[in-house]
Amino acid sequence: MSSENRDVIFIGKKPLMAYVTSTLIQLANLPAVHIKARGLSIGRAVDVAQIISRKTENAGYSIGEIKIGSEQLESKDGKSRNVSTIEIEVKRNAP
Amino acid sequence: MSSENRDVIFIGKKPLMAYVTSTLIQLANLPAVHIKARGLSIGRAVDVAQIISRKTENAGYSIGEIKIGSEQLESKDGKSRNVSTIEIEVKRNAP
Repeated sequence: MSSENRDVIFIGKKPLMAYVTSTLIQLANLPAVHIKARGLSIGRAVDVAQIISRKTENAGYSIGEIKIGSEQLESKDGKSRNVSTIEIEVKRNAP
Repeated sequence: MSSENRDVIFIGKKPLMAYVTSTLIQLANLPAVHIKARGLSIGRAVDVAQIISRKTENAGYSIGEIKIGSEQLESKDGKSRNVSTIEIEVKRNAP
């Protein structure tokens, strides 16, 4: 989960709740966090954002801007192909 | 691909290009189309939107508003569980 900038959480193969926990930890210190994923992990990024927004409705976190895009990746056979990406902002509501 | 309202494309198990084609057909008649998916198909919805926005940059289609949410579904054992959803607007750019 560690990433070069602390307001970004990259979704990989760990259990969902590991990402939910680290997002909540970052949100304790930062006004907003960006959950990023690509390819097959895109659905899991939406799951993490939804778990947080559902479970913390009172604590005042909500889903902010959502961006989708694609990146070019080089597969093992040297060919480059496009992989979809998603970035979901989870932010603290203004008090 | 048929849906009760024509501006909605539900992503299921068909090949991606089937959804790309039907989205483009709808966009020929409508100013905007909403690609919807849930659960494991969420990543494919992003793929379809990205293929369209990449392949039609000149023809003037772009990604509009993206919404995520969750629905309660009853699984076979009668228990209800939350499934994440996504809705991606693909729209014709203003001339």
